[in-house]
Amino acid sequence: MEHSFIAWAKQRASRLPQVELGIGDDAAMVASERSMVVTTDSLCDGTHFVLDECGPRAVGRKLAGVNLSDLAAMAAIPKAMFLSLCLPNATCSGATTTGAQNPGSMAVEIFEGVYEYAERYQVAIAGGDTNVWPGPLVVHMTAIGEAPAKGAWLRSGAKPNDAIVVSGSLGGSLLGKHLNVEPRIELAQHLMERFEIHAATDISDGLGIDLLSIFSASGCGAELQLDRIPISADAHRMAVSSGKKALEHAIGDGEDFELLLAVPPGELSRLPAEIDGVPLTVIGKFTSRTGLWGREGSRVRQIPPKGYTH
Amino acid sequence: MEHSFIAWAKQRASRLPQVELGIGDDAAMVASERSMVVTTDSLCDGTHFVLDECGPRAVGRKLAGVNLSDLAAMAAIPKAMFLSLCLPNATCSGATTTGAQNPGSMAVEIFEGVYEYAERYQVAIAGGDTNVWPGPLVVHMTAIGEAPAKGAWLRSGAKPNDAIVVSGSLGGSLLGKHLNVEPRIELAQHLMERFEIHAATDISDGLGIDLLSIFSASGCGAELQLDRIPISADAHRMAVSSGKKALEHAIGDGEDFELLLAVPPGELSRLPAEIDGVPLTVIGKFTSRTGLWGREGSRVRQIPPKGYTH
Repeated sequence: MEHSFIAWAKQRASRLPQVELGIGDDAAMVASERSMVVTTDSLCDGTHFVLDECGPRAVGRKLAGVNLSDLAAMAAIPKAMFLSLCLPNATCSGATTTGAQNPGSMAVEIFEGVYEYAERYQVAIAGGDTNVWPGPLVVHMTAIGEAPAKGAWLRSGAKPNDAIVVSGSLGGSLLGKHLNVEPRIELAQHLMERFEIHAATDISDGLGIDLLSIFSASGCGAELQLDRIPISADAHRMAVSSGKKALEHAIGDGEDFELLLAVPPGELSRLPAEIDGVPLTVIGKFTSRTGLWGREGSRVRQIPPKGYTH
Repeated sequence: MEHSFIAWAKQRASRLPQVELGIGDDAAMVASERSMVVTTDSLCDGTHFVLDECGPRAVGRKLAGVNLSDLAAMAAIPKAMFLSLCLPNATCSGATTTGAQNPGSMAVEIFEGVYEYAERYQVAIAGGDTNVWPGPLVVHMTAIGEAPAKGAWLRSGAKPNDAIVVSGSLGGSLLGKHLNVEPRIELAQHLMERFEIHAATDISDGLGIDLLSIFSASGCGAELQLDRIPISADAHRMAVSSGKKALEHAIGDGEDFELLLAVPPGELSRLPAEIDGVPLTVIGKFTSRTGLWGREGSRVRQIPPKGYTH
């Protein structure tokens, strides 16, 4: 199965000028004039997706989405994706894998899901690895981008009084968004070209934890304005039955894949409330006082980054 | 466990000038002046290794070895490795995984195995991803190298009458060599700098199949001189009980991770029989007649690339 899939994928893969050598040799070759930005993520059946519920094409889409989201968080321009598959064989006894699909057609479906993102963002599928094994489905991607000429966004550049800005709305991604990731590639390019951004990440572990990753790398703290956090409709929907408030979902849930930015205060008057339909919201500021703090009216109290409870 | 392992790995990882940003942000940044050569490989418990028999450190060594071997096959200079782990949790019911080790210490052991190769070949461990799941151990690596100034070796450059040259000896890697991979990085650099090499690959699937990958990409055929193939001691050892001849092991077994080269005939008089203790052996020639052929004395017959039988 492996050789016929590779031959098929070689024909199917997008041909883009940045790939000097694509699928089919011992390694691929990617043209590079500037520093390369490299990210890598694995997704496992039963942990990051439930194959029997979502099907293999959605797995491919999610895999491409989460990797491209990491590149967006650095304001990198995506160039090439490398796809590695550990496909369940017929004897797989994985919790969520029926084994009803043969490895070859599953590989094609996953590839097609990745391909949707390859086309949308003009990224090449430049190489990979295919294995069949008795375990559940594990998929893996490494995505490579080019650093912007002005320099990539890091987590470590936030300064006290920088505004905390978030794209989109947060929480409840389990109801669907976690499988239909919209990596903020264009938004990041737009912001990088026109504004000074001190630090950035994408929200994958949840607003609280990802904000912690910025302010601890930057040696400062953060204060969230709790009534300004954009709560998604899905967070409200989950709150109906979860026993948590919608705000708790917005702060504690992961896999929003929105941009979280440190924007110097002087830029705020120029920053639009929305770019190409994606809202940008100021939800607080970085502080010289370390730790994560939440403001409600005049009350400020420390909040735990993970498992925020109202 | 994930955050403490990442913090540990960040301290432990080699600091090398080619890595502008290492472990700990959304992505890593690798400096690049020339085209980047990128390879990616996954290894699964029970398929590529048996964790209970070899232990996690050997898994890390093998993972680094097979990826670096792919870079050697392109004559690329390795720069950075990215390590992604799917670690079994306590409830894992994988065939070969006892689950006796906690995910954190297993991650450290795998990392240390990779680190041995990072030190030996001066390659940075620049990033990765860590997951804990209920399945057996799956490890994944993407390795990035720089293409040599003279251009990388491809599989597609072999010409009729080029000599087939192999490094080391072949067969029986299951007896140990498959876990103690010696990627031919220095040998490839030495050959690339001093000789004209038309095509190359590393022997991962077996001499027959990997030779097929060169001659089919090059649009020619190949004739092996069967009495010249260097048969390893382990191939002879396996032949005692396997029911196969040692030569069949040398042609059909995989994971030798030796270099397989197409060398123009004019270079042969200059080519040494050994470089830094690694033998180089001429084992046949590429031919205008397509297909894989085996010569024994004056008899020439077609041989199947996979499952060669004497």
